[in-house]
Amino acid sequence: MKRKLLLVSNSTLHGGGGYLDHCQQQISHFFGKDVKKVLFIPYALHDRDNYTKTARDKFKTLGYEVESIHEASDPVEAVRKAEGIFIGGGNTFRLLKSLYDNKVVTEIQRRVMEDGVPYMGSSAGTNVATISISTTNDMPIVCPPSFNAIGLVPFNINPHYLDPDPNSRHMGETREQRITQYHEEPNTPSVLGLREGSMLLVEGNKATLLGTTKARLFSRGKPSVEYEPGSDLSFLLSDAHRPIK
Amino acid sequence: MKRKLLLVSNSTLHGGGGYLDHCQQQISHFFGKDVKKVLFIPYALHDRDNYTKTARDKFKTLGYEVESIHEASDPVEAVRKAEGIFIGGGNTFRLLKSLYDNKVVTEIQRRVMEDGVPYMGSSAGTNVATISISTTNDMPIVCPPSFNAIGLVPFNINPHYLDPDPNSRHMGETREQRITQYHEEPNTPSVLGLREGSMLLVEGNKATLLGTTKARLFSRGKPSVEYEPGSDLSFLLSDAHRPIK
Ligand SMILES: [Ca+2]
Ligand SMILES: [Ca+2]
Repeated sequence: MKRKLLLVSNSTLHGGGGYLDHCQQQISHFFGKDVKKVLFIPYALHDRDNYTKTARDKFKTLGYEVESIHEASDPVEAVRKAEGIFIGGGNTFRLLKSLYDNKVVTEIQRRVMEDGVPYMGSSAGTNVATISISTTNDMPIVCPPSFNAIGLVPFNINPHYLDPDPNSRHMGETREQRITQYHEEPNTPSVLGLREGSMLLVEGNKATLLGTTKARLFSRGKPSVEYEPGSDLSFLLSDAHRPIK
Repeated sequence: MKRKLLLVSNSTLHGGGGYLDHCQQQISHFFGKDVKKVLFIPYALHDRDNYTKTARDKFKTLGYEVESIHEASDPVEAVRKAEGIFIGGGNTFRLLKSLYDNKVVTEIQRRVMEDGVPYMGSSAGTNVATISISTTNDMPIVCPPSFNAIGLVPFNINPHYLDPDPNSRHMGETREQRITQYHEEPNTPSVLGLREGSMLLVEGNKATLLGTTKARLFSRGKPSVEYEPGSDLSFLLSDAHRPIK
């Protein structure tokens, strides 16, 4: 298993500077010196040109060239040749639908799992890296053919995880209540709630929590557990952790 | 067009008493004296028995008997015989999937649009009454066969509509940003943002905003507009208001 993933909760952190500033050290370390050019997938936002410019400008400061998949004549071929992949945030439903429409879901999975191409995701790009998009926070503005995602890890992530606000007068469900509703459904895997500022680094069968905030793990039928930055979360990668279908 | 709808934003209002207390006068007026028994659809929550007890207890205080669709041997037959229908809130994806699984989507539409059976929805029950569930706030915990809903009105509603919090440090999209993303997609209908405390009454081709809070209307390519309680929103019901496909 050559898998190498950097799954970031959020692209911009309150008080943490501009786009991807709060995780730029981790990005440099993750793609390293061997990767020269990163394939960017801007499908989660409507204005792909503008989004690509934002990503390109940021990655340039870190020493990487950016090629955007929407500028390639053949998206599948672009994935086939990629040295590294970055899928940015936006709307998860729109992103997953475009990944299916462009027939790149299987090819991304193959390149990452078999060829060891490093995959970085942020927000929606983190959701689609997991087993399914069932724990996205986004609005279902378009309907993808399935909620099954690229499946680079066998569990779910909830990016932008938010603690309940004790002063709220709003009666909509809290984030925890939403995840609890997910776990009322049979055979649902664990959900890692990544607070803004946190990210998960996966190297083969090793998973480590990075960043500045704690993460909260929700597993079906068990109390939720808090993990400090630096925690080893490798146990999440074992298939045994996924409930039997 | 005999259509008679009461589409409520939320089941419980902060500071507004218990379950459905804040809209009980409107409920009594809506179902009136001719309806004796209301068919309750508890599909949006996992514990259907408990949910039915909550609804049954409340409706009893208003003088209505409640029959739950999940207690009926044949759900389609239960809709066919219903004098009035109430779909409660919970998770919109779970609700719509169960409506499709139980094959009642078309029958509810027929009873309401052709036979004039009064339909009340709250929160998720309001989402499924509209053209689609594309503007729900819920987490996609299960995958319905389509996002198309019962279609009793030709536009979308966003229940629990929430104004942006200027003090928030959270970087997830605001509600307005989410609805704006929906309108970036082609041919998307208007979205009525119903704040908690508000509800929409539809009688034939007349629509009136009721309750204690304003509603915000989002239309593709236009600035959003605020409406006071009591406003006539009948223009939303004309098909001409829906963008041409
Ligand atoms: Ca998002
Ligand atoms: Ca809900």
